[in-house]
Amino acid sequence: MKIGIVGGTGDIGEGMAMRLSPVFDIVVGSREQDKAEASCTATREMLKHRGQECTLHGVSNQDAVDKADIVILAVPFKHVVPTLSTLHGFEDKIVISPVNPMEKHDHFVFVPPPEGSAALLIKKLLPKEVRLCCAFNTIAANRWKAIEEELAYSVPVCGDDEDAKHQVMAMVNRISDLQAFNAGPLSVAPLIESLTPLVLNIARYNRMHDVGIQFR
Amino acid sequence: MKIGIVGGTGDIGEGMAMRLSPVFDIVVGSREQDKAEASCTATREMLKHRGQECTLHGVSNQDAVDKADIVILAVPFKHVVPTLSTLHGFEDKIVISPVNPMEKHDHFVFVPPPEGSAALLIKKLLPKEVRLCCAFNTIAANRWKAIEEELAYSVPVCGDDEDAKHQVMAMVNRISDLQAFNAGPLSVAPLIESLTPLVLNIARYNRMHDVGIQFR
Repeated sequence: MKIGIVGGTGDIGEGMAMRLSPVFDIVVGSREQDKAEASCTATREMLKHRGQECTLHGVSNQDAVDKADIVILAVPFKHVVPTLSTLHGFEDKIVISPVNPMEKHDHFVFVPPPEGSAALLIKKLLPKEVRLCCAFNTIAANRWKAIEEELAYSVPVCGDDEDAKHQVMAMVNRISDLQAFNAGPLSVAPLIESLTPLVLNIARYNRMHDVGIQFR
Repeated sequence: MKIGIVGGTGDIGEGMAMRLSPVFDIVVGSREQDKAEASCTATREMLKHRGQECTLHGVSNQDAVDKADIVILAVPFKHVVPTLSTLHGFEDKIVISPVNPMEKHDHFVFVPPPEGSAALLIKKLLPKEVRLCCAFNTIAANRWKAIEEELAYSVPVCGDDEDAKHQVMAMVNRISDLQAFNAGPLSVAPLIESLTPLVLNIARYNRMHDVGIQFR
């Protein structure tokens, strides 16, 4: 199974590549292929230094879509529309949205688009055959990158295609100590996406760093 | 410090009385005072059987407001407006809303009122001097009542009055193994109230019971 990370040289995408490439065959996409290649070289060296093998290739965002079975859209909310407008070929893919529509005022505020959530906007922008899931919404970039630490978090996953959702959940469960939970259909995406401004506020007001969530 | 529970004979209210009355001076309110007294007698006997002392009195909902420093509105969302329309005397109180506006369709859906959240509706209904906080939103009735188990959960607390919020957080931290987190101003209430349909869906789709949350 090949996983493509669109926006794979951003903070979240780079952290995901570090965690996923020892387990899966990863293609890291970027608007500039050179940047993706450089990021992959650095990650490969870092993992090698830790004695970990990885499968990791830097490509363009379009190649990350074309080569992958599962595509992760690791882009900030404000880049979703411009990024997707430049890409095609999603038809037979499983797509994962970890995107959270929010703004920082004095604190973090959930500001969904008229569709109700980033995922529901993405669904509208992609061909209707695409099997879209939300996952990884609440895991901070710094935690992805702190590869000496286990990621002991819960990951709510939602989506309308049960087979795709279970593939995504199985994938989540193979990463560090993450535990996937079926959160229901794609329509519950606002409940998942609004967790992130909540945990960012919890971090801000309680002087914590990179707060995550566990269900129990 | 005296704590009044409005709706204290409902599932959540009764569970709260079991956990809070060994620690605080509790007045349990009900629309029918007889019902509140009977519930308190049962709770007192149950705690006595476990070797626990408690301070617990069954009263009317209005008395639960009048006698308390902190009033917990332990009523379902649909009863908020009718209940508050019968009560007065909140002016100098700290009020806690654990109320979650949601509906059960095939799964649970967050259905806030036009104000954006139950807490923001409650704020509009109460005198403006009232110091209102959200707390206890995600703790299931069955967990409150399972007093042989520790409540090892995180409790996000929001509110606009810092002193009131810190009093509520200190109170939360004295109950079982609950840990209070400052989640910000009252305007973040939708982020807290929407946790409950999320955890109910997690329970439903993963065959779990009474799922709670920890921040870490």
